[in-house]
Amino acid sequence: MSTELRRQLASLVVVRGSGHGSDGQRRYPRWELSNAELRRLLADGVGGVILLGGSAAELRLRCEQLRHWAGGPLLLCADVEEGVGQRFEGASWLVPPLALGRLHQRHRQEAEALAERYGRCTGRQARLLGLNWVLGPVCDVNNNPANPVINVRAWGETPDTAGALASAFVRGCQAEGVLACAKHFPGHGDTSSDSHLELPLLPHSRVRLEEVELPPFRSAIAAGVASVMTAHLQLPALDPERPATLSAAVLTDLLRDDLGFGGLVVTDALVMEAITAHHGAAEAAVLAFEAGADLILMPADAEAAIEGLLAAVAAGRISRERLEASLQRRHTALAACAPPGGLERTLDDLAQLITPEEQELSRTLLALSLKRHSTSTVPPGPGLNLIRLDSQLNAPQLPAMAPALLRPGAHGYSPTVLDGRSPSPWSGDPAAPLALERLSPGPVLLQLFVRGNPFRGSAGGDESWPAVIQQLLAAQRLAGLAVYGSPYLWEQLQPLLPAELPAAYSPGQMPQAQAVLLEQLGLPAAALEGGFTD
Amino acid sequence: MSTELRRQLASLVVVRGSGHGSDGQRRYPRWELSNAELRRLLADGVGGVILLGGSAAELRLRCEQLRHWAGGPLLLCADVEEGVGQRFEGASWLVPPLALGRLHQRHRQEAEALAERYGRCTGRQARLLGLNWVLGPVCDVNNNPANPVINVRAWGETPDTAGALASAFVRGCQAEGVLACAKHFPGHGDTSSDSHLELPLLPHSRVRLEEVELPPFRSAIAAGVASVMTAHLQLPALDPERPATLSAAVLTDLLRDDLGFGGLVVTDALVMEAITAHHGAAEAAVLAFEAGADLILMPADAEAAIEGLLAAVAAGRISRERLEASLQRRHTALAACAPPGGLERTLDDLAQLITPEEQELSRTLLALSLKRHSTSTVPPGPGLNLIRLDSQLNAPQLPAMAPALLRPGAHGYSPTVLDGRSPSPWSGDPAAPLALERLSPGPVLLQLFVRGNPFRGSAGGDESWPAVIQQLLAAQRLAGLAVYGSPYLWEQLQPLLPAELPAAYSPGQMPQAQAVLLEQLGLPAAALEGGFTD
Repeated sequence: MSTELRRQLASLVVVRGSGHGSDGQRRYPRWELSNAELRRLLADGVGGVILLGGSAAELRLRCEQLRHWAGGPLLLCADVEEGVGQRFEGASWLVPPLALGRLHQRHRQEAEALAERYGRCTGRQARLLGLNWVLGPVCDVNNNPANPVINVRAWGETPDTAGALASAFVRGCQAEGVLACAKHFPGHGDTSSDSHLELPLLPHSRVRLEEVELPPFRSAIAAGVASVMTAHLQLPALDPERPATLSAAVLTDLLRDDLGFGGLVVTDALVMEAITAHHGAAEAAVLAFEAGADLILMPADAEAAIEGLLAAVAAGRISRERLEASLQRRHTALAACAPPGGLERTLDDLAQLITPEEQELSRTLLALSLKRHSTSTVPPGPGLNLIRLDSQLNAPQLPAMAPALLRPGAHGYSPTVLDGRSPSPWSGDPAAPLALERLSPGPVLLQLFVRGNPFRGSAGGDESWPAVIQQLLAAQRLAGLAVYGSPYLWEQLQPLLPAELPAAYSPGQMPQAQAVLLEQLGLPAAALEGGFTD
Repeated sequence: MSTELRRQLASLVVVRGSGHGSDGQRRYPRWELSNAELRRLLADGVGGVILLGGSAAELRLRCEQLRHWAGGPLLLCADVEEGVGQRFEGASWLVPPLALGRLHQRHRQEAEALAERYGRCTGRQARLLGLNWVLGPVCDVNNNPANPVINVRAWGETPDTAGALASAFVRGCQAEGVLACAKHFPGHGDTSSDSHLELPLLPHSRVRLEEVELPPFRSAIAAGVASVMTAHLQLPALDPERPATLSAAVLTDLLRDDLGFGGLVVTDALVMEAITAHHGAAEAAVLAFEAGADLILMPADAEAAIEGLLAAVAAGRISRERLEASLQRRHTALAACAPPGGLERTLDDLAQLITPEEQELSRTLLALSLKRHSTSTVPPGPGLNLIRLDSQLNAPQLPAMAPALLRPGAHGYSPTVLDGRSPSPWSGDPAAPLALERLSPGPVLLQLFVRGNPFRGSAGGDESWPAVIQQLLAAQRLAGLAVYGSPYLWEQLQPLLPAELPAAYSPGQMPQAQAVLLEQLGLPAAALEGGFTD
């Protein structure tokens, strides 16, 4: 009986694994369990795995393997907010949601139809690869451009847009037999710190929450979203003590009772510093469950979390009724999922992974979200192709044959790449920040890959891009500008540009976005380029 | 009949595909055929595919798919000279062969036993993943340290060592039911230009070839090697007109008649500039076949090559007997291969991909090949971890959690990475080449990833590492030195080091090599590090 109870509690725990098959391929072994650990925990009844890393083909095999180890239904999820290809190469990687949020301000119906197709594409490919739970849409309202962690992941900058598009995504995704997840409840858009590192504070009143933060969640719930993920946030107006993830006032009183949500409530990763710094793995799981969560995501120690829950049931902190309710919600959610394909369908499923309609969706989203500053084209080189990105290591947006490298190369522009590990290109002079004498001479094509906080990049160093633009203009060396990612950075830089300067912006950073953008700057496909436009 | 003849000729062509499943994942689409092209060519009878790119799991699925498209036996090969993990992540990635060549000078039997295990490991894992043909061992004698293309890929610097170890590799690999391939006939070791770019010239007499170049091939043939790959080299002593790949004097008179080789002769990639610059795709294929090759690898245009061969048969340039002999050799080779596993065995095969014995082999090879300069350890930082490698983009040796980054980081050393695309770290002063004022202050841990030509890296720029060592010593800033790859660079730098300087060399560049080397320098495993020591 105690064994059965332990299995029941374990089924409410979701652990993290790598999408790659072998232990040596794990990118983050601190968080990603080894195969031996995964196998043991799944045999003991652990109910879900969140996956990161690996290609589409690897993910497909991995999901088969995990289901085999579990010997029964399993929740298999991933943070594929921007299409499955955002995390698993080979699947569709779509422009970030905020691009549609911008479109929605002008073309409401078109944007909503596209958001539904976006959800359908994500759900369908997730299902084909073996996932049954997409950890999206983000329902946070990105009304704070300095937000370092939500930003372009949000579907809108107003409650109306975020709600309309997030719920369209939910409809599309769930129509494919894959659960969606509205996050991060009750709203992470108006924060300027990163809960991966510390516990942000949202100082708003309940009235203000009703106006800004809650409407998108209400929309998603009305659309039938199967799950809601909690935020690691302090909301003193609702709970002066506990962060949202551990707060009964937020999860039970607000989400369950006031918003009437009857689906699965899942914590954000409990291993995140905002929670682990304050509670142990066991107590964090118990507190989250007591507060109203059904599923415990990525506890710092899965065994300890299960033991903690077991002790809490024994001590009467968790009632059998409450446990039954959570088990029933998990059962209901799994029953709504399309059945997995089976190993023998692997090659067929992979062969039809991206449909022509989904290819067309990728292209349409890129075309609609592209911003062009002028009709000018980049003059022929020789010149310098100066690329800024957070990190070149394992950068999916910059394979060796990326258009951002090859197309300027074919036009005479040699690449110099700046990231957090490059020798410093900075002068120390705020008015002329780039040490131009250390870089190749000639015209400069500047390509900025920036997401998250647009004003200070995570690559460190003295990155004042407005001053760099003015410096290059004063030196008559700015040959072109490409911004990939943040609309806020583009909106800050574009007013500085002469009317005829070749410049454009795409919210996407993937090779396909580069191809579309650079085409506009007069840099067509190069001979060796990847098949990035398909 | 003509259709049957066309299929027969097509079966002697080996085309190139990506190990990744979808067209958009191709890294080199100029050379890697699209899925539509592969499918059509295989349906038309093309007889083999050379694969590059993708993980072990992807390769397994890819081989299943290609066999399915072919509808019959297929040669599936890859350049996995240093273990299957050299090209396909997740499998064993072993130290380069030359490390065993060095060991062989001192411990002959031990080195030969290890080379056989090396071949067995490579063959076994190739078979489990669906390959039936390993394009190794390199039988070239690397008697020219400036060789830009063979170098550490060779098994020895003397004919005796290269022959003994290469034939041990052949025995091990073929015992697993996977064909091996001795390359690059008649010997590419004593060249200083790269046949990928131009046609190197080997000015030696037949007598000298008998002394140096040919013995390793004779050894491999005596060991029963199933195939021999030709070199794109000019050998005026043997053939004043044609490069080896197209020379009847080399392939028929020397290899078939004098050396008595009865197995498969395969060209090196015909698409390489050394050949394509001089002949069209069709004529190059016909010339190679006329010269004595059985299999045409990577013609610039497979259709054209097949049509060219068809026309040559019609015109009587290729006799039916000669064609039958090549078909028979291919048939015999395929009959010697272990049967493929089948889709239903995929998860089992992947789960047992690396055996404990193979893990132990990896560790043994690393331990035996490590060179340590002193017993000193790197002092605690803060300091600079200065890493040099050819390219950070898609660098399998430097994942974001690589020991070369994380271990010095945990010790207080911040990384700066130099590659062909970084802002210049050079001063222009040959006596003090590094512009130290542009780099972080404090002690410098220098980590050099150099293979191929050790004296001028392909990363470009002014790389004089002896002068850099002297500069850092003079500034009293050299905290440690790690060289990964070239023994020639290590032998050039080590004499410059003070006796107590923490320094070490590994022929391997993979994360596991970094872990083993840095352990010796007093930098133990960091918390977030990957499972790279397994």
